Amino acid sequence: MRTTPSASYSLTVRCSYQNRPGMLGRVASAVGRAGGDIGAIDIVRVDRKTIVRDYTINAANAEHGERIVEALSGVRGLEVVNVSDRTFLMHLGGKIEVSGRAPLKTRDDLSMAYTPGVARICEAIRDDRRKAFTLSIKGNCVAIVTDGSAVLGLGNIGPLAALPVMEGKAQIFKDFAGVNAFPICLGTQDPEEIVETVERIAPAFGGINLEDIAAPRCFEVEQQLAERLDIPVFHDDQHGTAVVTLAALTNALKIVRKRLRDIRIVFSGAGASATACVKLLQRAGVQRFVVCDSRGSIFAGRRKGMNPAKEWIAAHTNPERHKGSLNAALEGADVFVGLSAPNIVRPSAVKKMAKDPIVFAMANPVPEIMPEKAAPHARVMATGRSDYSNQINNALCFPGFFRGLLHVGAKAVTDGMKLAAAKAIASVVKRSELHEDYILPSLFNEAVVPAVAAAVAEEAYKARVARRRSRRAT
Amino acid sequence: MRTTPSASYSLTVRCSYQNRPGMLGRVASAVGRAGGDIGAIDIVRVDRKTIVRDYTINAANAEHGERIVEALSGVRGLEVVNVSDRTFLMHLGGKIEVSGRAPLKTRDDLSMAYTPGVARICEAIRDDRRKAFTLSIKGNCVAIVTDGSAVLGLGNIGPLAALPVMEGKAQIFKDFAGVNAFPICLGTQDPEEIVETVERIAPAFGGINLEDIAAPRCFEVEQQLAERLDIPVFHDDQHGTAVVTLAALTNALKIVRKRLRDIRIVFSGAGASATACVKLLQRAGVQRFVVCDSRGSIFAGRRKGMNPAKEWIAAHTNPERHKGSLNAALEGADVFVGLSAPNIVRPSAVKKMAKDPIVFAMANPVPEIMPEKAAPHARVMATGRSDYSNQINNALCFPGFFRGLLHVGAKAVTDGMKLAAAKAIASVVKRSELHEDYILPSLFNEAVVPAVAAAVAEEAYKARVARRRSRRAT
Repeated sequence: MRTTPSASYSLTVRCSYQNRPGMLGRVASAVGRAGGDIGAIDIVRVDRKTIVRDYTINAANAEHGERIVEALSGVRGLEVVNVSDRTFLMHLGGKIEVSGRAPLKTRDDLSMAYTPGVARICEAIRDDRRKAFTLSIKGNCVAIVTDGSAVLGLGNIGPLAALPVMEGKAQIFKDFAGVNAFPICLGTQDPEEIVETVERIAPAFGGINLEDIAAPRCFEVEQQLAERLDIPVFHDDQHGTAVVTLAALTNALKIVRKRLRDIRIVFSGAGASATACVKLLQRAGVQRFVVCDSRGSIFAGRRKGMNPAKEWIAAHTNPERHKGSLNAALEGADVFVGLSAPNIVRPSAVKKMAKDPIVFAMANPVPEIMPEKAAPHARVMATGRSDYSNQINNALCFPGFFRGLLHVGAKAVTDGMKLAAAKAIASVVKRSELHEDYILPSLFNEAVVPAVAAAVAEEAYKARVARRRSRRAT
Repeated sequence: MRTTPSASYSLTVRCSYQNRPGMLGRVASAVGRAGGDIGAIDIVRVDRKTIVRDYTINAANAEHGERIVEALSGVRGLEVVNVSDRTFLMHLGGKIEVSGRAPLKTRDDLSMAYTPGVARICEAIRDDRRKAFTLSIKGNCVAIVTDGSAVLGLGNIGPLAALPVMEGKAQIFKDFAGVNAFPICLGTQDPEEIVETVERIAPAFGGINLEDIAAPRCFEVEQQLAERLDIPVFHDDQHGTAVVTLAALTNALKIVRKRLRDIRIVFSGAGASATACVKLLQRAGVQRFVVCDSRGSIFAGRRKGMNPAKEWIAAHTNPERHKGSLNAALEGADVFVGLSAPNIVRPSAVKKMAKDPIVFAMANPVPEIMPEKAAPHARVMATGRSDYSNQINNALCFPGFFRGLLHVGAKAVTDGMKLAAAKAIASVVKRSELHEDYILPSLFNEAVVPAVAAAVAEEAYKARVARRRSRRAT
């Protein structure tokens, strides 16, 4: 549960009160005493006797919002006319829309965009399928595919309840990278059926972004689709997280002057994103890993609580066969990467890490250790949250990553692209700017998308998976 | 093949010539002699010696376009710098886009549209699935589904080549009716697989528009989906055509003062749209039909060239068991409806129809009989073409039809809705305006969509298939 007020829980409260001096101050202090943050005050109506104002107030959560409204109702001479929740208002009618890129105002417009003119475009694509990449949306369109089985921290809420997340993602795709993306929420959670369905709807898309699909089925779905389709398939929960984590680690190591190949990393979590992180960090040169789940270290020969993903981890990490708890494993470690559960790392364990500990506690919304608690010991601290510095957020990766893939008409995603994307993200923070509290660029840093896109496109050419020959700009 | 110049085949030709008097006239007459229509002339660059101008010229077809460019090249002192095809230019990069309805400019925006704020919306839908109709795109979003098996007059060109048509349709949905629609181009033409796939992607949509799917599979696909889904399913090629044909017939009959129940109609064509027309006209009160295919009249007991759809036709029409050719069947008929092939109706056959013949020759692009040839005999003439009066075009129906369905959260499509939609379209042309050349409103008549939407919504309430209780506006 969040404890600090934020826009994600923001209310607009319409208040009517007598038009006399001092009321504004009394309202402000009532909100302040209740712990709310006034974001904006708008005048709705004023006459000689009464004033109607809209107060937009950030609260910490639903219950806190109610307390704030109660506090306002308690102000003498003030009436709460209406309370509206800004996040709900923003979702009314959906967050995305599909529109024409040119208006259809005249019969001429219509006869070009639709019959009879469109027939010539259809014939051109029929005669040369590659033309679909330039003469239709295919070349700049991504399907955001989910089965709703692992949505945010909410778990298996199903495809319909997952739709608002997919819409938000489509918004980010367009706003950040100019990519058209559309939610495909699947009414099945069977891996074979997911693969089959995505394969059948693939013709109109230039790429597939898998999203919020639970492990282990996400591995099978991604692998099968990558084999069957001639467009790139990217499971963002795995690879987006891995890319941004590697970017953050790259810059954190510059600060502490250590090298990837020398460090020992302890992971907490053995799910899809943790496994993808381990694999990418290995490709990047990290050699020493211990991965822990809720039972402690995973090692070759462990019998209890294993599954195919953990068997892979056991076979490819922890050569010294460390056995024991997460907190024990941290002793002498250079880096902690958490993708697991809240409040499971003790400050004392961070204290026993090697010199200049790097702590990436990414459990959401409550990290493995709160920054305040890690602060006395950790040199560099990052979380998945936006209300602390160093937010490790997939949105630093996926918009530019797909921008690059689509730009060259990539047929596949390669590990080289992921490494290059991580390097590109890291490079946006210049050496002179690097700081313990600034290892990653802001989501709103406009240099990120072009850097990532260029790196991914370049790798596509190197790996010969680019469909487009020339490197001209779109 | 079209023979009159139109915007659907329009070129922009960049010409550079010496800056001296008289050139403009010479260019105009060269284009005129070649049969082209100059639509616009833009200045690109002028200096003392040369002028560069863009001529936008309507041609009749590709070959004609080449002849025009040749004629221009033949003008002394003129150089053709570049030729671009406006229809192709309009399709570059695709015709539609997916964008956010509100900008993501700040971290606050992001924390409401995406994590963590979006989680509360997901929970609200998880707890009450109906909320998806208001809090996500579902309530105003249609899937335009095709397998690319019967696209325009081009036949089975496949899903990828069909994509530009679906994009054009999505444009019309948005521009005409404010409905978000997205193309789903299926890489399968197996009816069971089509049904299965649409069922699996249905969660994010409020309606399904089937498009350009060949008969007979379109019947099975539509019926199966209507049974399995709790959102409306509408095969536009069938029902859109039927609705607009009924609207046109309704008004044509007002002109000739005949009643639906008295007339005899001869159909040419026994495909999906013709069958749907027969069914809807029967529901509207027409009693006497003869349906012909390429072998002539379809009658009970006919053995050759039959299929399940034609068996249905044989059992439900032509009680007098007329046998013979289409042209013979037309003798004494009040109405001809063609959904078949070019130039198969003889003027002499129209001459032998009952008094005040009504001729709807809708084969595309060349009708069963050209208006010029039918003119001496037909009282009311309509085609599917935009370059003659009385265009019978599905776009008069589907935008408003879905607007109405979505407005009430309809669970199904009923015959009552189709009848009401036809009546609504017909009613947009007032009695005082009715004329042999004006039996249908223009596609750009802004009264059409609201009229159709209101009629469909009203019928949804009557038939108790409306999900939304109140009738408030969206």
